[in-house]
Amino acid sequence: MFQKILIANRGEIALRIVRACREMDIKTVGVFSDIDRNLIHLRDVDQKVALGGNSPAESYLNIDKILKACFLTKADAVHPGYGFLSENVLFVQKLQENGIAFIGPSVNVLQKMKNKLSAKKIIHDSGVPVVPGSLEVVNTLQEAKKIASEINFPFMMKACLGGGGRGIRVVENDKNLEEAFKSARREAKMAFGNEEIYIEKILDNARHIEVQILADRFGKTIHLGERECSLQRRRQKILEEAPSPFLNDNLRKKICDAAVKAAEALEYSTCGTMEFLVTDDQRFYFMELNARIQVEHPITEMISGVDILREQIQLASGEPLQLNINQFNQRGHAIEMRINAEDPFRNFIPAPGFIKNYETPRGPGIRIDSHCYSGYEIPSFYDSLIAKLVVWDTDRIHAIRRSREALHSFVVEGVPTTIPFHLKILQNDDFLRGVFHTRFIEDEIEDI
Amino acid sequence: MFQKILIANRGEIALRIVRACREMDIKTVGVFSDIDRNLIHLRDVDQKVALGGNSPAESYLNIDKILKACFLTKADAVHPGYGFLSENVLFVQKLQENGIAFIGPSVNVLQKMKNKLSAKKIIHDSGVPVVPGSLEVVNTLQEAKKIASEINFPFMMKACLGGGGRGIRVVENDKNLEEAFKSARREAKMAFGNEEIYIEKILDNARHIEVQILADRFGKTIHLGERECSLQRRRQKILEEAPSPFLNDNLRKKICDAAVKAAEALEYSTCGTMEFLVTDDQRFYFMELNARIQVEHPITEMISGVDILREQIQLASGEPLQLNINQFNQRGHAIEMRINAEDPFRNFIPAPGFIKNYETPRGPGIRIDSHCYSGYEIPSFYDSLIAKLVVWDTDRIHAIRRSREALHSFVVEGVPTTIPFHLKILQNDDFLRGVFHTRFIEDEIEDI
Repeated sequence: MFQKILIANRGEIALRIVRACREMDIKTVGVFSDIDRNLIHLRDVDQKVALGGNSPAESYLNIDKILKACFLTKADAVHPGYGFLSENVLFVQKLQENGIAFIGPSVNVLQKMKNKLSAKKIIHDSGVPVVPGSLEVVNTLQEAKKIASEINFPFMMKACLGGGGRGIRVVENDKNLEEAFKSARREAKMAFGNEEIYIEKILDNARHIEVQILADRFGKTIHLGERECSLQRRRQKILEEAPSPFLNDNLRKKICDAAVKAAEALEYSTCGTMEFLVTDDQRFYFMELNARIQVEHPITEMISGVDILREQIQLASGEPLQLNINQFNQRGHAIEMRINAEDPFRNFIPAPGFIKNYETPRGPGIRIDSHCYSGYEIPSFYDSLIAKLVVWDTDRIHAIRRSREALHSFVVEGVPTTIPFHLKILQNDDFLRGVFHTRFIEDEIEDI
Repeated sequence: MFQKILIANRGEIALRIVRACREMDIKTVGVFSDIDRNLIHLRDVDQKVALGGNSPAESYLNIDKILKACFLTKADAVHPGYGFLSENVLFVQKLQENGIAFIGPSVNVLQKMKNKLSAKKIIHDSGVPVVPGSLEVVNTLQEAKKIASEINFPFMMKACLGGGGRGIRVVENDKNLEEAFKSARREAKMAFGNEEIYIEKILDNARHIEVQILADRFGKTIHLGERECSLQRRRQKILEEAPSPFLNDNLRKKICDAAVKAAEALEYSTCGTMEFLVTDDQRFYFMELNARIQVEHPITEMISGVDILREQIQLASGEPLQLNINQFNQRGHAIEMRINAEDPFRNFIPAPGFIKNYETPRGPGIRIDSHCYSGYEIPSFYDSLIAKLVVWDTDRIHAIRRSREALHSFVVEGVPTTIPFHLKILQNDDFLRGVFHTRFIEDEIEDI
């Protein structure tokens, strides 16, 4: 097992990682930007290293600074959390060159995934359905037109090396096809140094359902069931739940098995998430692999009883996967609400600032993952997450009712939050019936 | 289902009950003594009634005042919580006469239990082993001597109508037998209006293990497994865990089955706890029935996934017990630590006072049941419980490690607490090995 883990992240996930390490008797190193010197997890680490600067590029995204902090403290492993360097191939290569373990998948896997089209092809070849579109690079307008006639509009043109929502063009009809083709290639070249693009169908009214995977280096891969993540605003997840109210046991089994098969095809290890789009007619299509611990991992922990972060660390250290859980012996229902410092009454504008008073809900079935406290100043340099409010109860309707109570007793004074927006979602009839899709929030309840 | 429940209690359990009612769409009435007007649960009730006064006798123990509050608010049921009127036969009778439901067992059961010896005899006759001693009233010194020769010293003389630790005499040897017999009868007569006493063996080095029961009015009785409650200080539980590290599956099954049998023999309904003493040689003896929701119920909730309070309300309203859980499909390990305003460095003297700063731990596996907040003044009239820190993890050792972390990040400024004492317990080698008994704290680690 690792002796000392450097946590290359901040906020709630850094706190979550420090606690997990302390419970496992592993020493920890915290790193921090100038403005983050009072982050709560820095109270609990064994050593801390100032990165200097404030912007992500100057601090948590700065590979050289993070590496230096590793050398300085003799950390033998790095936990990247989510975001920042968590899926950065170059970073992982440099760690490997210096004999430092990366708590995440291998360089090989990250390299395979870097080209989204190649990754998609590997998954497709393993027999798992992928979102319809081209499985080869689309080099000419002619080829683009041919595919358009096969899969119909609307579709997306995407950069093969793209990511983070960049290098994507939505093509609604014949008219903007040529312009989209050209500009997509141009942006791909500019942003990723490679003009290759591919085409992917836009599936209307689909659900975003993802499957949590755990895998060791010895070929054992299991899933911990699915998460329903369709409630998004501008592609940002806002409320997630597990299990999905849409899946029946038959479809659930098919999707979860497909996720395991896809992970095996990629020779994936540690923890990861296979994202799928699921259509009204109960078809499902692989969309993307997230090769990291995810923001929404707690809902799976609450229904499965598995500590995913602890498993991730153990698997990254080379231990075989010990879990032999019945993959469907989950219990109850869990909902995660992202409490952000954003103003839902003003188009969700980020609203960092000083938290005067902060009281989080307590009691049965309530879990709070949060680094905030009364007197904490949310900086403007990073994301606006204040807390993940995670609520468990015996079934979906009780979990919803308990969530409402928890939101009512959640006190954040000083900055606007998404709490009123969550209350609105939890009162929406379609949500209560479990009938929604990825555009639901924008179409139905964005106007709070 | 009930329309409106009056909560005849205060503190954390009142808050727990209000939340449960709100989640079930039941209206609530709060009652409060003068000094309790700022209790946090009173923010969430639909109506509140001032009882006036501060001492328990003037407020939460005052049957007339509570009844008047029921009439005033037209509450159709009363939840008594624990302590105060929760096992008071007279109170339950008066409620019944006025057509108000009591959320607890029937008057009949409470009456059977009022005479501890009769209750013990019913349990014994059902085939469940009871603590050795007399099964009849001990009327003469001669009879007492005869029993002494059968069961050996030490033993207790207990008032048949006793309770709350009163009317008990410990008899160590022949010398103090006569004096104890006389004074026990005298105290019984004084305190309970009845001089009848019985004899019960003192079992050294025994464990206190109790079983959570749920039962409906239609004869269905189940258990939710056991709780290990041996860690006590002067008969007050201080740290409880579930499951017990002492029981093997065979003994666990025997004790849990016996608990169900005892509950059936008493025709018990709603929720209750059967307390047993378990000796080193794996024998177990019924000790006492607690006919209420218990302080330590959360650890069972965390491993079983059952909301015991919600079940209790449903069962009291006459609903049949819906749970068909496999009684041994529990998950993981849970520990409850009672964080009291007591000074462990000064012989645990109660230390009510003003809480200047209050921050409770958060994160995976952490549940806090607490009514306190920064700026709360703990009154001296009632118990000194600040919070129940309940910690769950996949197994005992992880639960212990997580508990330590949680205690470290628990901030209470302004009053001394039992937090350092819990940390001491969690570091004790015998505790870690699961080797302890009901006198363990006094014998081994009381000197902090």
